[in-house]
Amino acid sequence: MSSEKSTKLWGGRFESPASSILEKIGESISFDYKLYKQDIRGSKAHARNLLKIGILSQDEFDSILEGLSRIEVEISEGKMKFQPELEDIHMHIESRLTELIGNAGKRLHTGRSRNDQVGQDVRLYLRDSIELIQKELISLLEVILDKASGSVDMVMPGYTHLQVAQPIRVSHYLLSYFWAFSRDFETFQNVRNHNDLTVLGSGALAGVNYATDRNLIAEELNFPKLSKNSIDAVSSRDHLLQYLYACTQTMIHFSRICEEIIIFSTVEFSFLTLPDSLTTGSSIMPQKKNPDLAELIRGKSARVQSSLNHVIGMVKGLPLAYNRDLQEDKIALFDAEEQVLLSIEGVREMIRGMKFRPENMENSLRKGFATATDLADWLVSEKKVPFREAHELVGRLVGVCTSSGKTLFDIEPEKRKDISEFFIDNKYEAAISLSNSTDKKNVPGGTARIRQIEQIDEAKSFLNSARQSKS
Amino acid sequence: MSSEKSTKLWGGRFESPASSILEKIGESISFDYKLYKQDIRGSKAHARNLLKIGILSQDEFDSILEGLSRIEVEISEGKMKFQPELEDIHMHIESRLTELIGNAGKRLHTGRSRNDQVGQDVRLYLRDSIELIQKELISLLEVILDKASGSVDMVMPGYTHLQVAQPIRVSHYLLSYFWAFSRDFETFQNVRNHNDLTVLGSGALAGVNYATDRNLIAEELNFPKLSKNSIDAVSSRDHLLQYLYACTQTMIHFSRICEEIIIFSTVEFSFLTLPDSLTTGSSIMPQKKNPDLAELIRGKSARVQSSLNHVIGMVKGLPLAYNRDLQEDKIALFDAEEQVLLSIEGVREMIRGMKFRPENMENSLRKGFATATDLADWLVSEKKVPFREAHELVGRLVGVCTSSGKTLFDIEPEKRKDISEFFIDNKYEAAISLSNSTDKKNVPGGTARIRQIEQIDEAKSFLNSARQSKS
Amino acid sequence: MSSEKSTKLWGGRFESPASSILEKIGESISFDYKLYKQDIRGSKAHARNLLKIGILSQDEFDSILEGLSRIEVEISEGKMKFQPELEDIHMHIESRLTELIGNAGKRLHTGRSRNDQVGQDVRLYLRDSIELIQKELISLLEVILDKASGSVDMVMPGYTHLQVAQPIRVSHYLLSYFWAFSRDFETFQNVRNHNDLTVLGSGALAGVNYATDRNLIAEELNFPKLSKNSIDAVSSRDHLLQYLYACTQTMIHFSRICEEIIIFSTVEFSFLTLPDSLTTGSSIMPQKKNPDLAELIRGKSARVQSSLNHVIGMVKGLPLAYNRDLQEDKIALFDAEEQVLLSIEGVREMIRGMKFRPENMENSLRKGFATATDLADWLVSEKKVPFREAHELVGRLVGVCTSSGKTLFDIEPEKRKDISEFFIDNKYEAAISLSNSTDKKNVPGGTARIRQIEQIDEAKSFLNSARQSKS
Amino acid sequence: MSSEKSTKLWGGRFESPASSILEKIGESISFDYKLYKQDIRGSKAHARNLLKIGILSQDEFDSILEGLSRIEVEISEGKMKFQPELEDIHMHIESRLTELIGNAGKRLHTGRSRNDQVGQDVRLYLRDSIELIQKELISLLEVILDKASGSVDMVMPGYTHLQVAQPIRVSHYLLSYFWAFSRDFETFQNVRNHNDLTVLGSGALAGVNYATDRNLIAEELNFPKLSKNSIDAVSSRDHLLQYLYACTQTMIHFSRICEEIIIFSTVEFSFLTLPDSLTTGSSIMPQKKNPDLAELIRGKSARVQSSLNHVIGMVKGLPLAYNRDLQEDKIALFDAEEQVLLSIEGVREMIRGMKFRPENMENSLRKGFATATDLADWLVSEKKVPFREAHELVGRLVGVCTSSGKTLFDIEPEKRKDISEFFIDNKYEAAISLSNSTDKKNVPGGTARIRQIEQIDEAKSFLNSARQSKS
Repeated sequence: MSSEKSTKLWGGRFESPASSILEKIGESISFDYKLYKQDIRGSKAHARNLLKIGILSQDEFDSILEGLSRIEVEISEGKMKFQPELEDIHMHIESRLTELIGNAGKRLHTGRSRNDQVGQDVRLYLRDSIELIQKELISLLEVILDKASGSVDMVMPGYTHLQVAQPIRVSHYLLSYFWAFSRDFETFQNVRNHNDLTVLGSGALAGVNYATDRNLIAEELNFPKLSKNSIDAVSSRDHLLQYLYACTQTMIHFSRICEEIIIFSTVEFSFLTLPDSLTTGSSIMPQKKNPDLAELIRGKSARVQSSLNHVIGMVKGLPLAYNRDLQEDKIALFDAEEQVLLSIEGVREMIRGMKFRPENMENSLRKGFATATDLADWLVSEKKVPFREAHELVGRLVGVCTSSGKTLFDIEPEKRKDISEFFIDNKYEAAISLSNSTDKKNVPGGTARIRQIEQIDEAKSFLNSARQSKS
Repeated sequence: MSSEKSTKLWGGRFESPASSILEKIGESISFDYKLYKQDIRGSKAHARNLLKIGILSQDEFDSILEGLSRIEVEISEGKMKFQPELEDIHMHIESRLTELIGNAGKRLHTGRSRNDQVGQDVRLYLRDSIELIQKELISLLEVILDKASGSVDMVMPGYTHLQVAQPIRVSHYLLSYFWAFSRDFETFQNVRNHNDLTVLGSGALAGVNYATDRNLIAEELNFPKLSKNSIDAVSSRDHLLQYLYACTQTMIHFSRICEEIIIFSTVEFSFLTLPDSLTTGSSIMPQKKNPDLAELIRGKSARVQSSLNHVIGMVKGLPLAYNRDLQEDKIALFDAEEQVLLSIEGVREMIRGMKFRPENMENSLRKGFATATDLADWLVSEKKVPFREAHELVGRLVGVCTSSGKTLFDIEPEKRKDISEFFIDNKYEAAISLSNSTDKKNVPGGTARIRQIEQIDEAKSFLNSARQSKS
Repeated sequence: MSSEKSTKLWGGRFESPASSILEKIGESISFDYKLYKQDIRGSKAHARNLLKIGILSQDEFDSILEGLSRIEVEISEGKMKFQPELEDIHMHIESRLTELIGNAGKRLHTGRSRNDQVGQDVRLYLRDSIELIQKELISLLEVILDKASGSVDMVMPGYTHLQVAQPIRVSHYLLSYFWAFSRDFETFQNVRNHNDLTVLGSGALAGVNYATDRNLIAEELNFPKLSKNSIDAVSSRDHLLQYLYACTQTMIHFSRICEEIIIFSTVEFSFLTLPDSLTTGSSIMPQKKNPDLAELIRGKSARVQSSLNHVIGMVKGLPLAYNRDLQEDKIALFDAEEQVLLSIEGVREMIRGMKFRPENMENSLRKGFATATDLADWLVSEKKVPFREAHELVGRLVGVCTSSGKTLFDIEPEKRKDISEFFIDNKYEAAISLSNSTDKKNVPGGTARIRQIEQIDEAKSFLNSARQSKS
Repeated sequence: MSSEKSTKLWGGRFESPASSILEKIGESISFDYKLYKQDIRGSKAHARNLLKIGILSQDEFDSILEGLSRIEVEISEGKMKFQPELEDIHMHIESRLTELIGNAGKRLHTGRSRNDQVGQDVRLYLRDSIELIQKELISLLEVILDKASGSVDMVMPGYTHLQVAQPIRVSHYLLSYFWAFSRDFETFQNVRNHNDLTVLGSGALAGVNYATDRNLIAEELNFPKLSKNSIDAVSSRDHLLQYLYACTQTMIHFSRICEEIIIFSTVEFSFLTLPDSLTTGSSIMPQKKNPDLAELIRGKSARVQSSLNHVIGMVKGLPLAYNRDLQEDKIALFDAEEQVLLSIEGVREMIRGMKFRPENMENSLRKGFATATDLADWLVSEKKVPFREAHELVGRLVGVCTSSGKTLFDIEPEKRKDISEFFIDNKYEAAISLSNSTDKKNVPGGTARIRQIEQIDEAKSFLNSARQSKS
């Protein structure tokens, strides 16, 4: 039994070893091994502090650093065997360190608790993860910008209520996602700025009984700020919640473009074709070419939202400071990160590979009376009809077209005249022209050609700043 | 490239192989391997149907059954190497079957789609999983009943708003969870009854071009009902949603008893002691004996709720019939099942091992004025004071006690008299007696001793029926 | 101040009145007034019990009953002025009763707590609400059945991945929702059966100090079962959670049919037309005819899911018995009920009013190669090609069609022959016939005409039982 | 019928009026009336633009401005009767304006859509709401800081796992929430900075056919940025999602302090007393003094989380641009805002009114072995025992105390000696002194007295900046 007791760092007052259910439910090594790099980095910074404040000799320090580096290699090469009875990544590393270098390994935990240790590890992990996600987002933004630059002169229907609304340039459509993803980039940046925090030195919750030099640790870890209150430092999961929120926001954007890719790829829309390599078939229906990638990502948006809610629900109503419920916050973290990274790549490759089919998009524009608003606006500006009346007149014209299977382009002049003399004016054709319509939206952010060029420039400029901020 | 194409069952019209992102994001073998038993069972039933309707010869049928049995052993012994490019468990089994027995293996998929196949597999899995969970719930109920039977004569405070409300018997407290978990048992039963459904024969969505004998399959699988509409059969995830709801309801119950175990184990309450084997210490604080098991389960309740929401969010707004989003419904299923099973075991072991400390509970009862209501009721029944006035008088007495640090038991008679003559009546002591209070709650479901015996009998009776229904 | 104290039923020990924030945050009359009928019904049953056990005289009882009836009328006629300082509906009724009939009104609360009172009220409300929802669901099912009966001979594309999969009969499509909604009907029935419970007599949590005849109350309220444990009776919110789950399941079904209505109403699909009265226009685009009703209901599915989660999140981790958090469970209840009722009506009217456009659906079937599977199955059954090879051959044929803008119907014979001799067989046309395809799905639950007739009969039969169970 | 048609702005092509279900489900005036100030402010800015670009004459402009001002007064004084058939606040205001000033009122909608109009209104509302919430948060922070300043010299137990961990100063405890709420303040600020956006000029989705001067509007509305893409401007709900996330984060913090207030107010803990005015009694139990305010707020945290999820779920999978699902986003917004404001006030008043009871907190510290870690650290620093061994020795000492009902303060020397000679060292008493323990946590953010003074200064400094940024 004593040997069983000795496997725990806290066995002193315990008469019997952990039950099997506690072992099964309590281990976290099956998922928190992912923190090993961050744990080792944090431990090295902590060790340097222990050296400075005289807890470690130079020799001890040197052997600890060497030992930790060796362990990092061992884990990265898959050579460490994880054991549930050693519970978590912290114990695995400490235990292996003691194996390698003896008692000095035991001293490493002086002036530190698993509470501030894991708090630091996760903050390091989030910083790394945000860097990675932001780089991937940049690569997605580049693909969109590239695609948009090549599609300024292609016109497609813009939708509201999934009904054809107005003609828009394809570049305009694509760039709308550029800006959404740019907000995701910035939201992640806000998460990082808000949480670039050194928490080591907070101990279990109250600070430590040692002259820990927290500024030294902060420098070592390259974190600009110290946490201001040790209780808050080990209790808060705001950094994780904010990160998961940013993941969710990103995924919700993805769910929207995926929905559109799915709809635009239908036989009925046929606005775009995805490359074969990004679609799948059916085991039973030979004709199928399914946009599974888009569907999977749309589904994953609900999965990532769930991860956010997992942690919100877990933290709700928890008294300070650390509670073991929080152990599983990392499950949500790792899963959300993985889904976001997969999804960025998936969306990027779909955008890169999609081919638009302009003839089908134009067909929809005509059948959908996409320039009805332009006609009404022409009545307003040229014929001085109040907007509400113009809207009414054009609405009636559309009604007549619909019931006779016509469009604004081929409805007979006499039927037009029945509704209003204005509709047989010789400027009627120009007023409903698809080609004119987009260019009349000549406001900043509008779909006019000139505004697309402007917008592409703004996008480039955003991208340059984003790239620079990450280099 | 042609060899790459041949790895997919649907490669015919595809010019290029799946991209790496599609492979990574699209594989499900990493989690759906868990369905292998159900998939094989379903395939055997399907094969018997193919034999009957003449698609398979007797020889082919025999070799398919033998092959499937062999594959089941291989997988259960960990001998099958899962390959992402074979996507899912269905392909792995079919591919291995063809390897083992040749072309007959390919015929097995005749008259079947992955849509109805996975629909059937999951329904089989849910049936098995519900059986398992219900058995575990029975074992939990047994432990509670046993503990309750031994604690009829122990009195503890009942709480509302976490303030001492009234004395209750410990058996009464424990049995309140018995009934909650019995509802979980019944809720799972409802899920099963509602979804014991044969869906094979639904094909991709419209039914199959073969004279599939669905009743034969139903008999083979021991499912009493046929799905009535093939589109609904492959589209609906109600069975899974209902199962996940049942899991969530169960976990919410667990979160409540865990919260109480945590609170009752505090130094301040000290109402109960968990065995060392179910608690953990701190890596830094030697005195700690933490109810981690209870905390972890409380946290897991948020995790299981998230699984429910994962699937609700995934299904929301999906057009019929199958969409690939749904692939990941199984992630929610398997995780929820695992958490529920771990949690049942954890709660059961905590209840089994908990030791109550009656002296501390009695102390709280006194300090918490637990019999104030009894005193008011005595005024009503013996002194004919209207209830609202009685309540007011006792409220004032409590106020006087509180401000002088007294209880109803030791507050001076003259102070009592200041409020009401009734309070110096010689029945005052009996009216506030802790021992009398519980027995006055002599209604069905009340905390009186005699009602506890009755309730224990009802619990036994529930348990007997439950056990019989599962044997 | 004393007058302020007297407005509360629990003012005895309190030195100062409630602060304004407590008044604002604590009142529930702004929403729980909806329980007034149930509260009065419960109070009448409770009064009869008090009469029987001698707490009330016959005269008191009579005046209480008369007073309560009068109050019910007053509230239903909008004559009661709700006052936040009277907190909740229970206090409003009790206070008004005392105003009307004097001290006997005060006696009504004897042997009752707001905890069991509200527990009973909500269970009564749920029973009524389920009745109402079920009746509305029946009316929805009737409309679907009627629409399906008239559309057996109309063929539309069935979809998987929103890609044309196979021809299905429109009746088959509509009936798939019939069965989904029938499950909702049954799920609500399960909720009711599971929770038809008398909880009065549970008191605050431990039972009551009176010889309350709970069976009498159960009879009065027409509830078949008594709660078995008073703590559980006032603590549990399972009845509400189950109800909210049933609401969510129903709404998720609605979100799916709404998604399809939206997609099928697009200019590009044009499979169906909603009546003008169920669509809306745009304030700026005169041509718009938007399926807002479907969109609003799709959105409401997220709202009702949120109500479920509101209560799950609220109950999670709550110690027994009653906690004030639970007060707001009724907000979720009332909102979910209202959204479900609105949505049933909305979906019903859309189904009633929708007009299918068969020519567009057939066009999609051809362009979508909807009979490719039939062609493959013909190779299997007539040409003895193994299914996987047949699938491959047809897949290649589809590929050739796609790249040359053809369908299976108009692709040149020589191109067919290039892939396989079988494709110039004189049965080729019959094999790809849209009209034949559906009838080959001649399994129970399949889309064959004969199976539609069968399914319609089953639906009628379900509906008859449902109607009878509610009459 | 024509009169019915004329009530809608989009009636032109519609043959029949809206059905009653569409009226009921489609109206939003019952909740979006809350936007009236923002709508009027936006309309005024838009009008000034119309004046500049020549759509409105100076006279028309003047009468519009006057009319709008008058309407604002009418609404604020409750004089406008809301009519469901006028659907939303935008229509109400426009319709009333036309009533007041005639045709010029109709011109106001030129170059604007309800899509960009409501997009602008909500952004204005969020800005106002964030201002308000931030001011309330400042007032909460002031109360905490004040309370903390007065409690530096009071010691309480710090908890992990709700087990006594280490002594902390009450100021330290209170300030941990200061920093949490300061993060909420900053999170709201980030939301605002990220979304201070002019979207007017985006039209329905593509921009407008007028030379709208968006910069002029931006200046009028005091929004520093223009939206860069009109589609994104009307489609995105990121501003709302971020706001709801910030609300949720804040509420989760509140749920934690409320949980602690509830626990600390129990008879068993008795760490703090809330004023009578913030607690409530029971209608049946006269002794009860319940922390309902804390419970209600804890419950509301689930409600606000649900509002976040309502909108996430609603936006998931929506194609661009506007869909009617989004109409109900404002329900989530208004409810979340109201709950957050109520909760801030509630938490603030509880903190302001709470009285700590130091004697009970000290009692817990002793019984909870709060200085066991200090004893271990003393072994490390003075006796050069490796930390893990020190931890083990103290753990055994605690075990002996527990089994004999002693504390570290009164356990017999010989029993101490049995475990280690060190424990009878004459520095033993000093090592376990409660008074010494906190001051040894002398790191930045630690609980030492000197660090509290430092932390209070930092808090003051944060508060000053926050106040300045809002003035």
